[in-house]
Amino acid sequence: MLEPDLAAALRSELGTEGLIESGADLRYYASDRCKGDWPVAPAAIALPSTIEQVQTIARLCSARRVAIVPSGGRTGLTGAATAIANELVVSLARMNRILAVDPASRLIRCEAGVTVQAVQEAAAAHSLSYPIDYAAKGSAHIGGSIATNAGGVKVLRYGLTREWVQGLDVVLIDGECLRISGELVKNNTGYDLRQLFIGSEGTLGIIVGATLKLCRPAAATLVALVALANDDAVLELFTRLRAGPLTLSAYECFDRGCYERVVDHRTRASTKPLSELGDRQVLIELELASEAEREPTRDALVELFELAVQDGLIEDATVAHNDATARELWAWREDISESLHPHTPHKADIAVPIGKVAVFLQRWRKAVGEALPGIEALVFGHIGDGNLHLNLLCPPELDGREFLARCHQFDSTSYALVRDVGGSVSAEHGIGLLKREYLGHTRSAREIALMRAIKQSFDPHGLLNPGKVFLPA
Amino acid sequence: MLEPDLAAALRSELGTEGLIESGADLRYYASDRCKGDWPVAPAAIALPSTIEQVQTIARLCSARRVAIVPSGGRTGLTGAATAIANELVVSLARMNRILAVDPASRLIRCEAGVTVQAVQEAAAAHSLSYPIDYAAKGSAHIGGSIATNAGGVKVLRYGLTREWVQGLDVVLIDGECLRISGELVKNNTGYDLRQLFIGSEGTLGIIVGATLKLCRPAAATLVALVALANDDAVLELFTRLRAGPLTLSAYECFDRGCYERVVDHRTRASTKPLSELGDRQVLIELELASEAEREPTRDALVELFELAVQDGLIEDATVAHNDATARELWAWREDISESLHPHTPHKADIAVPIGKVAVFLQRWRKAVGEALPGIEALVFGHIGDGNLHLNLLCPPELDGREFLARCHQFDSTSYALVRDVGGSVSAEHGIGLLKREYLGHTRSAREIALMRAIKQSFDPHGLLNPGKVFLPA
Repeated sequence: MLEPDLAAALRSELGTEGLIESGADLRYYASDRCKGDWPVAPAAIALPSTIEQVQTIARLCSARRVAIVPSGGRTGLTGAATAIANELVVSLARMNRILAVDPASRLIRCEAGVTVQAVQEAAAAHSLSYPIDYAAKGSAHIGGSIATNAGGVKVLRYGLTREWVQGLDVVLIDGECLRISGELVKNNTGYDLRQLFIGSEGTLGIIVGATLKLCRPAAATLVALVALANDDAVLELFTRLRAGPLTLSAYECFDRGCYERVVDHRTRASTKPLSELGDRQVLIELELASEAEREPTRDALVELFELAVQDGLIEDATVAHNDATARELWAWREDISESLHPHTPHKADIAVPIGKVAVFLQRWRKAVGEALPGIEALVFGHIGDGNLHLNLLCPPELDGREFLARCHQFDSTSYALVRDVGGSVSAEHGIGLLKREYLGHTRSAREIALMRAIKQSFDPHGLLNPGKVFLPA
Repeated sequence: MLEPDLAAALRSELGTEGLIESGADLRYYASDRCKGDWPVAPAAIALPSTIEQVQTIARLCSARRVAIVPSGGRTGLTGAATAIANELVVSLARMNRILAVDPASRLIRCEAGVTVQAVQEAAAAHSLSYPIDYAAKGSAHIGGSIATNAGGVKVLRYGLTREWVQGLDVVLIDGECLRISGELVKNNTGYDLRQLFIGSEGTLGIIVGATLKLCRPAAATLVALVALANDDAVLELFTRLRAGPLTLSAYECFDRGCYERVVDHRTRASTKPLSELGDRQVLIELELASEAEREPTRDALVELFELAVQDGLIEDATVAHNDATARELWAWREDISESLHPHTPHKADIAVPIGKVAVFLQRWRKAVGEALPGIEALVFGHIGDGNLHLNLLCPPELDGREFLARCHQFDSTSYALVRDVGGSVSAEHGIGLLKREYLGHTRSAREIALMRAIKQSFDPHGLLNPGKVFLPA
């Protein structure tokens, strides 16, 4: 519930369609995809159409000490865009215009509420590419993707969202709008404030617009699927692939259990992609500079695989011979999340140094076996970045609540193992509400103190997305 | 002069060779390459060999409220590494070890005092590349290059130093050492403090070590030199080159005057690289994915040039036919700085949005003609990034001091013109002491206030490189 005078002021600024105070939409706009043990309790939803309206909202809330939750496409997985204590949700959904594409500079300027997919499509219309790519791109907003520094399946080749942000427009809690760097490629004038907003999950300001870098798309790609016996072999194959001149754009691993769940989930019959499945599968994508490189690159890859078979490193491999088979191979990786969904998996998105992947997974699987007998552990992820998605599946005979309680208890073991190998408790999903208590596993007490000091400088009254990232002091 | 008890404590920690209190080396270590109207006045030079020694130095200075100037290869061009008021200079020169190269992760770990060139060489030994490249690389330290977010000739293709820093070790003013991210590719756990230290010019902490990303080197390159009539033509050719599938790795412009100074400066006879010189020359480098691409790429480039000649866009062009001629073409660009040196040029390193290059230069040249009659204005730079190096040359008949006084006065006009097109008063050299008064031309009052608040959080007593970046409050 908003105070009546604030509601009136917002209605006057945004029109009646720009303020939602009740009904199904109130709840719809008030949370992301992470459902946790917290309430969903928004005061109202504001839907501004312009930067000036966002500034007015910030000023009105700031004067009344009303907290704000910035909201994008609500595809986040940590509760960072969820209103939990009568905050005003500020959705950027109506600020969804592409403002300009400059092919010479390879830049695109857009409002924060544009989807990642819309940016990709606008780039493609100029034969350019926005290479940040992930399953939720059709819903995820550019603003949210910047606020969470989104990753995805091409990080190995193109990095995280951070590397593609050239300029940023951000409304501060008192309503001032910073317009940082704009179209400047180079701007070495003091501290790079852009970088603070990137990945800050709406706790320092409301991202309202961005200028993003674009690149030339890959001329062609070559896709392969490989079966291996264990994580050591997965890492050794990665090392061999990186030693040569091939350009890896994806190196995605999934274990036998993931494969089996995809088979179970499919309504159509699946052709087994490999004659011999391994305990691990790796989906490999290579970028080609031109179509002319396809045959020599395929030959080089097949030769590398043959040597790896001789060395006992891999068990089987297949290289896609056309686009349709390439898509089929990708589908074995891409369908995993959806296929696990009926098993209400308990997930953890973590990262470890690449050299520590095998030892970490050995310890983690052992710990699951000891602490959670009868619960199946499945792992997939962007293993070329050291980024693992750990999944625990609820057995049919176990009560859902009991399962979740055991999993939550086990989280502290999982994240302690991550900490012990110098890993990150959140590789690409962020902290939000979900992982606040584990922030100290990856960031030192001093780092957290510096982060809190920065938060205090930007938002002295703690009105921007309170309770996210940090545990209450 | 150090207080005797601090000098004794430092000598005890560092040994007599680790502390310089007098003699020529005192001055040698106390400034960078920028000589301005400020004193060079260090208290002493500390030369630690370990992170622990840097921590001890910070603790000793912090307790006594003694200021510190972190110092790398001293190749900076803004006075950022100059001691001006009895500070202790902490040189990282002895911390010059490469610690590890990991070819699979494509990472190199090193101490801060390693030169950029040494990192390049260590990478090359593993058939990898550290692609940040600039003339001072043989002297510039990795620590200093990170603290200034160094750019160089390949930014168009590889970005600034920021994009290549994976992990960072930083000693804070109270002696605590932050070890941020290490080997983690992905780590979305709150604010990215690394990014604050990058480009902070030693005002937030002392960078003592880094983990840097590496990449595959280009298989081959193709180099060309083109003559054009004016800046509009330079930008139109850039647009045409970027529209195609070619991979530009350099697009460097220099005007006729720069060319003539290089001819004057050379002791050997120079063969004119083009039959027709233009008022502008552009050095173009393209990256090739393989040697096999050389002939088709050359054909495509020649075809593009022929069309540009027909359209009246370019006046002449030559494509290097082997490595030796490629190096000769590059030398016309690389020799400019040294060739201008005898003319004691007054320089400005600025950036503007690429679309504003022509209009900015037109206004700037007109302003020079009006305000500085008889003074020659030469421009070269990384024009593909919108990064221009503006040079004013002292005429033989003018007294050096009078020249500098006039130039300094004209700076305010230059930087106002930069501001008016949304440009940056420092593209890649930073702010240091030289440009403090113009910081507000590129950063808003609020941005500067936020930067000062961050500085206060990291360094509450203002002991880290005081007076740099910000004007005294």
